[in-house]
Amino acid sequence: MRFLLIFIYFFCFSLIAQEQWEEVNPGVWKITVGTPDEFDLLKASNVPPKIEALTRMGGGNFPFDLSEVVTEVRSNHTYLRFPLDRQEQIYGFGLNFKTVHQRGQILHLHVDHYGGRDNGRTHAPVPFYVSSNGYGVFINSARYLDIYAGSAARKDSENPPEARDRNTDRNWTSRPYSDAVEVLVPSEGVELYVFVGPSPLEVVRRYNLFTGGGPLPPRWGLGFTQRVHKLFNAEQVLEEAALFEEKGFPLDFIGLEPGWQSKSYPNTFVWDKGRFPEPEKFMDKLKEKGVRVNLWVNPYVSPESPIYKEIRPYTASHTVWAGIVPDFTLEKTKEIFWDHFDKNHIEQGVSGYKIDEVDGYDRYLWPDVTQFPSGISAEQMRQTYGLMVQKQSAALFRARNKRTYGLVRASNGGGTSFPYVIYNDYYNHEDFITALINSSFSGVLWTPEARASKTPEEWLRRMQSVVFSPMAMINAWSSGTKPWSFPEVAEEVKEMALLRMQMMPYWYSEFAKYHFDGTPPFRGMSLEDGYQIISQKNTLTDDEANLETNPYAEAVRKEVKDQYMAGEYLLVAPMFAGEESRTVILPRGKWYDFYTGEFVGQEEVITVTPGLDKIPVFVKNGGIIPMMEPLLHAPGPEDKINLEIKHYGDKPGEYLLYDDDGETFDYEQGHYSWRTITVEQKGNGMFKGSITKAEKNKPDNINSVVWKYMTNE
Amino acid sequence: MRFLLIFIYFFCFSLIAQEQWEEVNPGVWKITVGTPDEFDLLKASNVPPKIEALTRMGGGNFPFDLSEVVTEVRSNHTYLRFPLDRQEQIYGFGLNFKTVHQRGQILHLHVDHYGGRDNGRTHAPVPFYVSSNGYGVFINSARYLDIYAGSAARKDSENPPEARDRNTDRNWTSRPYSDAVEVLVPSEGVELYVFVGPSPLEVVRRYNLFTGGGPLPPRWGLGFTQRVHKLFNAEQVLEEAALFEEKGFPLDFIGLEPGWQSKSYPNTFVWDKGRFPEPEKFMDKLKEKGVRVNLWVNPYVSPESPIYKEIRPYTASHTVWAGIVPDFTLEKTKEIFWDHFDKNHIEQGVSGYKIDEVDGYDRYLWPDVTQFPSGISAEQMRQTYGLMVQKQSAALFRARNKRTYGLVRASNGGGTSFPYVIYNDYYNHEDFITALINSSFSGVLWTPEARASKTPEEWLRRMQSVVFSPMAMINAWSSGTKPWSFPEVAEEVKEMALLRMQMMPYWYSEFAKYHFDGTPPFRGMSLEDGYQIISQKNTLTDDEANLETNPYAEAVRKEVKDQYMAGEYLLVAPMFAGEESRTVILPRGKWYDFYTGEFVGQEEVITVTPGLDKIPVFVKNGGIIPMMEPLLHAPGPEDKINLEIKHYGDKPGEYLLYDDDGETFDYEQGHYSWRTITVEQKGNGMFKGSITKAEKNKPDNINSVVWKYMTNE
Repeated sequence: MRFLLIFIYFFCFSLIAQEQWEEVNPGVWKITVGTPDEFDLLKASNVPPKIEALTRMGGGNFPFDLSEVVTEVRSNHTYLRFPLDRQEQIYGFGLNFKTVHQRGQILHLHVDHYGGRDNGRTHAPVPFYVSSNGYGVFINSARYLDIYAGSAARKDSENPPEARDRNTDRNWTSRPYSDAVEVLVPSEGVELYVFVGPSPLEVVRRYNLFTGGGPLPPRWGLGFTQRVHKLFNAEQVLEEAALFEEKGFPLDFIGLEPGWQSKSYPNTFVWDKGRFPEPEKFMDKLKEKGVRVNLWVNPYVSPESPIYKEIRPYTASHTVWAGIVPDFTLEKTKEIFWDHFDKNHIEQGVSGYKIDEVDGYDRYLWPDVTQFPSGISAEQMRQTYGLMVQKQSAALFRARNKRTYGLVRASNGGGTSFPYVIYNDYYNHEDFITALINSSFSGVLWTPEARASKTPEEWLRRMQSVVFSPMAMINAWSSGTKPWSFPEVAEEVKEMALLRMQMMPYWYSEFAKYHFDGTPPFRGMSLEDGYQIISQKNTLTDDEANLETNPYAEAVRKEVKDQYMAGEYLLVAPMFAGEESRTVILPRGKWYDFYTGEFVGQEEVITVTPGLDKIPVFVKNGGIIPMMEPLLHAPGPEDKINLEIKHYGDKPGEYLLYDDDGETFDYEQGHYSWRTITVEQKGNGMFKGSITKAEKNKPDNINSVVWKYMTNE
Repeated sequence: MRFLLIFIYFFCFSLIAQEQWEEVNPGVWKITVGTPDEFDLLKASNVPPKIEALTRMGGGNFPFDLSEVVTEVRSNHTYLRFPLDRQEQIYGFGLNFKTVHQRGQILHLHVDHYGGRDNGRTHAPVPFYVSSNGYGVFINSARYLDIYAGSAARKDSENPPEARDRNTDRNWTSRPYSDAVEVLVPSEGVELYVFVGPSPLEVVRRYNLFTGGGPLPPRWGLGFTQRVHKLFNAEQVLEEAALFEEKGFPLDFIGLEPGWQSKSYPNTFVWDKGRFPEPEKFMDKLKEKGVRVNLWVNPYVSPESPIYKEIRPYTASHTVWAGIVPDFTLEKTKEIFWDHFDKNHIEQGVSGYKIDEVDGYDRYLWPDVTQFPSGISAEQMRQTYGLMVQKQSAALFRARNKRTYGLVRASNGGGTSFPYVIYNDYYNHEDFITALINSSFSGVLWTPEARASKTPEEWLRRMQSVVFSPMAMINAWSSGTKPWSFPEVAEEVKEMALLRMQMMPYWYSEFAKYHFDGTPPFRGMSLEDGYQIISQKNTLTDDEANLETNPYAEAVRKEVKDQYMAGEYLLVAPMFAGEESRTVILPRGKWYDFYTGEFVGQEEVITVTPGLDKIPVFVKNGGIIPMMEPLLHAPGPEDKINLEIKHYGDKPGEYLLYDDDGETFDYEQGHYSWRTITVEQKGNGMFKGSITKAEKNKPDNINSVVWKYMTNE
């Protein structure tokens, strides 16, 4: 009997120990190494995969030889190794601000305010990378992970770096060749996922769908937003909204900063009676003007908050600014904390939140010695706090069948579907664009907000980028800057802002594709088929490999941090203050000027001198951009719009236009429509467009359609 | 029977579990928390305490209530907490470059190249701090430790910070009050030591004596050193030495950079036959000129090194610059590696090493995923590699009864006694002085080397600091700068260099006190009795506490990063390029100008305008500075010197002058002498000095004595 038990024990144990890669969803492979932590990124985010969409994509083979992937548990740590080949580039590891190519980097993934160096400490240090070879790896751990992204060399490697003499060899390098990504997980096990391509974009789409698909913002979320001075009162906010209207500047929601509360840092979460005596009336008035309210908060509870006493037992051992720190893994905490939000903010009309200080700095957060009542470690809590506040706050709106679209300072792997855009205190325009590019490799959204500027030129350049981003925000709580603050460029700024509104049908459809298909609305060039085709190949033709005679090949191998794709058809190349001209790398296929429809080049590096009033934007051949009239507020569920459909280039095209009520979750019950816009070429070479009708009983917000063939006209 | 066993088991277990503080050496209290790692800082350094000296100091009571110190092991981590009171300041945590006051800091102790921020990543991240209340805490762990040095606030603290309203309260702070030092050790236990004062200097002395006392350098180690261009050959080095002699500039040892080796980065550790065809002859020639040779190395072994094959099995899984990484915890490694050094360098005449790249950056070292054959983790290896290369290389010289004095990039707790000075690639003169101050709280030595300068003024100012430091080094391997490179200040630089040589009896005696008594030769002001008397007190008199009416009290509470004590009597206040004057805080008691003997002030803040040729130096009342003639090389064992003894101030004084052969370890067998220099005041108010004779058969290198009463003359 005892023998039998021992036998059974060892049999079961060896079953457990025999880790195997398994295709858990189409094209999504998983392995469980050792004994993972009970709490991880996917448990914190807890969003089901979009199985149907994944199934539509179809499965795929495990992209490595099994022997190439090494997983090992030793002395409380898990060691991971994934191979890299000579031509391979990797992207991702979260919201980096200075680098797109991650090969060669050493990163200590750690939720934190971005401190000016790409070292892993950032607002969304997502442990996911995408290979130019068309696969992705996700490490489902809420620990601080050490990543050697092709920067560590093994003595027994089959592809070791060459030893060189630094005294005399000019080819000596301080960063010798490495043939692997290596990861140190400070746990006795971990769950790993590998996402299949074949293209890098498909890898990203699979990751996004596996983590729930992108959020579908309410339509108003894609309009303009202004954040007002932190001590503004109700009247001042109403004046601000009136001023926007008077100036003819679009505005969909206004953000109130800490002064809306009776006390902040730590927070009461209670309206200040002096500044906001009648919050509900105040928000009603704003709503009448088509403007919604977003509230700044951080989660640290003041002793003077009405929820303080009740929530105290469910908070951490340590305080933040003398505020207690809710343990959001506990049901009880959720009830007490968010119920207050629901009853005292959302019920009164609040449309969303800006959730601050869930990222770092170290001195702004609970220390790593903190104990939480749930037993979740301070480290794990830090890596996931941003995820949990997003999930739990968004749930309040969902419960009222209202969509929200807010701001947050921290996110992580698994947070793709939460309707939040990351922002921070850093303020480098160039780096903001790099972050926008990197957001597409990590299932997060990022806003290159405009806050203040030294010159009219800078203000205009920043506002131009804002227009081609997930959230068109002016964050003026400190500077008080308004769109028209620089009279020299006020007209140009307004024109850009109105362009944002005109493009609403395009933006909304692109976000729908993020939600339903996993395609990020703003993307790095490396996800563009016609772009990375060369850099992706392992074997180059002589012509491709000859960088001297093929400057384009060199350009696409180079790290490109200053141009990106916006939606299906647009390539955006922002200008930065001080620049009069810049180069743009055009992927394969013909490209056209967004404003004029003129042909600009194909598969080449061009130099553009757009003038101050334009941000260079280019359209892919056959591209179709649906636009509408320049409204000051996003259309409501009942509003009809007049569509202007622009076609670019010398070939036919197609576009899927999405529509729903723009505010509720009814689309989850099928209340949405996809219409196909088609532009065909007739015998005479002229183009002719058509658009399908919405299905019966499906949303249809189109009043009229005008066609514009930009390149032919 | 079974019951008995269970009983015994629980009995033993509870014995083990009952951790207790124990006075293991006089004034040194220890506790073992949980199950510490088998490998730690004290095991890596492995130096016996100087029991006799500790016994002379006498014991002391444990400085805390037992209940105030919290130690707890949970989920693979050890949590520590030590109390802080309101007035308390803390110093230490290793070689910081920008801060002296550590209260309020968050540090992640991690051996690394200093990256410009005091965040715990530095060359010597020593887990030891000294309190102004007169005790010290040492955490004997070779792990990356997270330190919250009075920066974390607990919900249940008896001294919680006050919650304030950021909206309107001007006293709101982003760094609320904290009443504890908290530490996270990523191990299931740790050894802790508490060092008793009562004064902060006594705490430091106890720590230093417990870790073996400071090194006693060979006398030549305190002379001048120049490092030559990395590709210099033997002839060029000999020319350099000749040039120093010709210019009348002191020189005791020359450093050869990577080019002395046939290949470097990784290293062969073999002389380059082209540049150094006859190393032994070359070194003999230099030695005849009174100049020794120091060799640059890093420990990473080239495939072309003669030791490569033999040492390969005892090296790490990962390489550094394609060089293999010796596991220095293994006896076999020591044999193979250091034996080569002994036979091929030291036997031929090499006097010491500069051991580079044992610190970081991350990308310059083995990754944390590395496995070492001993089973010691990569993390522990990184925290202790600097200690081990110091210890093991120094042992080679000791075996030949020769002292060495070299340079190293990394050290840690326990390394006090190793004859190495830390240097780095950072180059901020002000921060170099802050590091010199901090070195005194951490049992390490630091050189504010001069490397290159933009202006003659900067060169002179840097050279002035160099003279008042543990190693007077010009590190010109890259810049090629020579002391006389700026003709405008060449004379002044030479005068300073000769002053260094004149002060040799003082420096040598002060290092002897570091060795025998644990008193650091270069010290922060907070270790000075007359200085910290106010900041140390818990209860201030009204006058002391009133910062408005007592600016001196304010000054001593302020973080002072730009003045320090050099030996028993000197206060040094370096000038930085661009400054014409500066303030100096004079501790209690009268102070005198080092150069003129004039009274300058007492217990006050003075402003000095010293001119370009002087670095402000002040002497304590009754101070005695023994000097000698300005030789170009340190005196040898047989050389006699002519002593010039300077006395300062209006009161009698005493000084202990140390002497031995200056080269061997014979002093450990008692072959040394302490002579007492006494200056008494006669009836007529005149001073009269006397000096005791060396005991029979003890070293006596004095030829003649001249007395100079600086203040009376």
